[in-house]
Amino acid sequence: MKANRMEAFSDGVLAIIITIMVLEFKVPEGHNWHALFALGPKIVSYIFSFVYVGIYWNNHHHLLHMVRKMNGQLMWLNLLLLFWLSLVPFTTAWMGESRFAATPTALYGMILLFSAVSYRFLHLAILKQHDASFAAAIGNGWKVKLSPLFYLASVGTAYISTWISGFLIVLVAVMWLVPDKRIEHAMGDGG
Amino acid sequence: MKANRMEAFSDGVLAIIITIMVLEFKVPEGHNWHALFALGPKIVSYIFSFVYVGIYWNNHHHLLHMVRKMNGQLMWLNLLLLFWLSLVPFTTAWMGESRFAATPTALYGMILLFSAVSYRFLHLAILKQHDASFAAAIGNGWKVKLSPLFYLASVGTAYISTWISGFLIVLVAVMWLVPDKRIEHAMGDGG
Amino acid sequence: MKANRMEAFSDGVLAIIITIMVLEFKVPEGHNWHALFALGPKIVSYIFSFVYVGIYWNNHHHLLHMVRKMNGQLMWLNLLLLFWLSLVPFTTAWMGESRFAATPTALYGMILLFSAVSYRFLHLAILKQHDASFAAAIGNGWKVKLSPLFYLASVGTAYISTWISGFLIVLVAVMWLVPDKRIEHAMGDGG
Amino acid sequence: MKANRMEAFSDGVLAIIITIMVLEFKVPEGHNWHALFALGPKIVSYIFSFVYVGIYWNNHHHLLHMVRKMNGQLMWLNLLLLFWLSLVPFTTAWMGESRFAATPTALYGMILLFSAVSYRFLHLAILKQHDASFAAAIGNGWKVKLSPLFYLASVGTAYISTWISGFLIVLVAVMWLVPDKRIEHAMGDGG
Repeated sequence: MKANRMEAFSDGVLAIIITIMVLEFKVPEGHNWHALFALGPKIVSYIFSFVYVGIYWNNHHHLLHMVRKMNGQLMWLNLLLLFWLSLVPFTTAWMGESRFAATPTALYGMILLFSAVSYRFLHLAILKQHDASFAAAIGNGWKVKLSPLFYLASVGTAYISTWISGFLIVLVAVMWLVPDKRIEHAMGDGG
Repeated sequence: MKANRMEAFSDGVLAIIITIMVLEFKVPEGHNWHALFALGPKIVSYIFSFVYVGIYWNNHHHLLHMVRKMNGQLMWLNLLLLFWLSLVPFTTAWMGESRFAATPTALYGMILLFSAVSYRFLHLAILKQHDASFAAAIGNGWKVKLSPLFYLASVGTAYISTWISGFLIVLVAVMWLVPDKRIEHAMGDGG
Repeated sequence: MKANRMEAFSDGVLAIIITIMVLEFKVPEGHNWHALFALGPKIVSYIFSFVYVGIYWNNHHHLLHMVRKMNGQLMWLNLLLLFWLSLVPFTTAWMGESRFAATPTALYGMILLFSAVSYRFLHLAILKQHDASFAAAIGNGWKVKLSPLFYLASVGTAYISTWISGFLIVLVAVMWLVPDKRIEHAMGDGG
Repeated sequence: MKANRMEAFSDGVLAIIITIMVLEFKVPEGHNWHALFALGPKIVSYIFSFVYVGIYWNNHHHLLHMVRKMNGQLMWLNLLLLFWLSLVPFTTAWMGESRFAATPTALYGMILLFSAVSYRFLHLAILKQHDASFAAAIGNGWKVKLSPLFYLASVGTAYISTWISGFLIVLVAVMWLVPDKRIEHAMGDGG
């Protein structure tokens, strides 16, 4: 029952995060397409973040299904993940407003990196509740391990070219958009 | 179970969308009715959007009841629908602030158009989970097919007269406010 | 099942309404108690609205428990109620910012009046699903009938003295803060 | 059933409180780390509040599990708690913006104090539903009794040094971050 409440609370926070980002789109100063296009980088920024929060929402759901027993550690690891994700609207707005300047883009990658590392911690803590064979089937998710490396690289490359950073970040999204069949199979319910 | 979570998440996002639109009503500068009436176009704009989001909430509920098996495709089509709807507060504010200028009104119609098309995709993906006779009874919903056409027309006519655009958009709302008896009958639970 | 979803959606909207009102408290310009006290009227305004939305949340819960069969009419009457309540943060902010000037206070009473009338409509529609004896035991709630009259009076008296308006509005709150024993008894579950 | 709805409503309000605090992070004026570091005190402020709201969310969950029978008193005590917590985003923003000036820091402690006292009232009201032995095992929670004293001290010391206030407030957080084993044991579900 408690995992349900953690799931409901997390869903609430994720739904708010994904929606309040839109509050950063200030009404354009003119009433023509030109005025709207000035918002371009903010909109691109928003699309990125919408997709990432969407991916987290989906993966988080899979992950929490594997919880056998709630405890304080899982709750605080989950809050740590939500903390980093709660900063996404801020970094999204900064990156968009700066038209993808180096530092805001690096910060964006850093927040995604910290989120991914927190997710990995939560993932490991939940795997501990299962025996080795289940963990072997599920746990060594290369995606969970690889994502932080890509985000780390995106932080570093932001000062060379934010196009490279953006490309690395998009790669992670593409990687996750393919659903993780192994978890679905192991859970035996098709997801 | 997963459809429930998607439903809860969607409800959360829709509840936030419908409520944060009110944050666009800045406190009037005077303390009299005249100062309030200056907000008129924003309030009309808000009423429109409140009704559309309300309609989506209701239809979405009917639609998700028909889901037999959740999968990644449905989840992402649902997120695509929520993405377009999440832009409604922005376009509502712009249209209201511009007092129904042509381009903001056209954009408003476009966002409703993209939402309607996404809804149609979700609708088709869910119908695929049912056999032909059920799909024949339910699926060829003329409303789902007709709405995008009306929205498309409203985008085009915004540059002739935003009154025509508004009229077309209102027509869609009127069309949907009549509950879809066929789905209710087919589901056999009166809705 | 559908009443559950309407309840969840309404709870979501009410939770957001009650919370975003706080966003109207701009950070004071100084760092002392004097700067904080300048927010006084806004805080009083907020306390009022917090209590009213709290009362609606509680009564709404009692009311929805009496729903036997969901239909489109109930859904739209419920959305009408949420529409008026969604304007509460705006009128709260205006009333507070104006330090209880006549027109903002009258508007505040009007929005509460329209909310109360919508609630009455929803109440009547739900009572129709029950037989006459149940309706006789429950339905002629004098509170539901009396509240709109008090709000109406508060609108009118705002131009004489907003203290009288405030007093009338407080009377309604006091009236509702005493829980309605009859519904609890009739439902037989103590509430 | 009603406790469930109160829980869901409270979760919604807490999720919104924790997330809208981020809206106080205005986009920095420059695009470099220096501009970001100017937000430092706001971010520290936010981390504090995120942890406190997280602690309340967790404790609240334990507490509501002990409710045997919902009534109006519990509902209004719960709303009183939510009222004080709803002011946390405001005091967080003021404290951060003032870079921990004495009065904003004192107010921050006061809001936490009022929240803690409200929590204590709710705690006592729920314990009354249990017999003396259960109350003896659970009810005399030294944490619930001690927290208000620490907050009270933090208010007073803010005018000597906000470092002392901060230290006292951190002590309360540390105290709560250790999960209350007694409740978990008494409930016998480890959760």
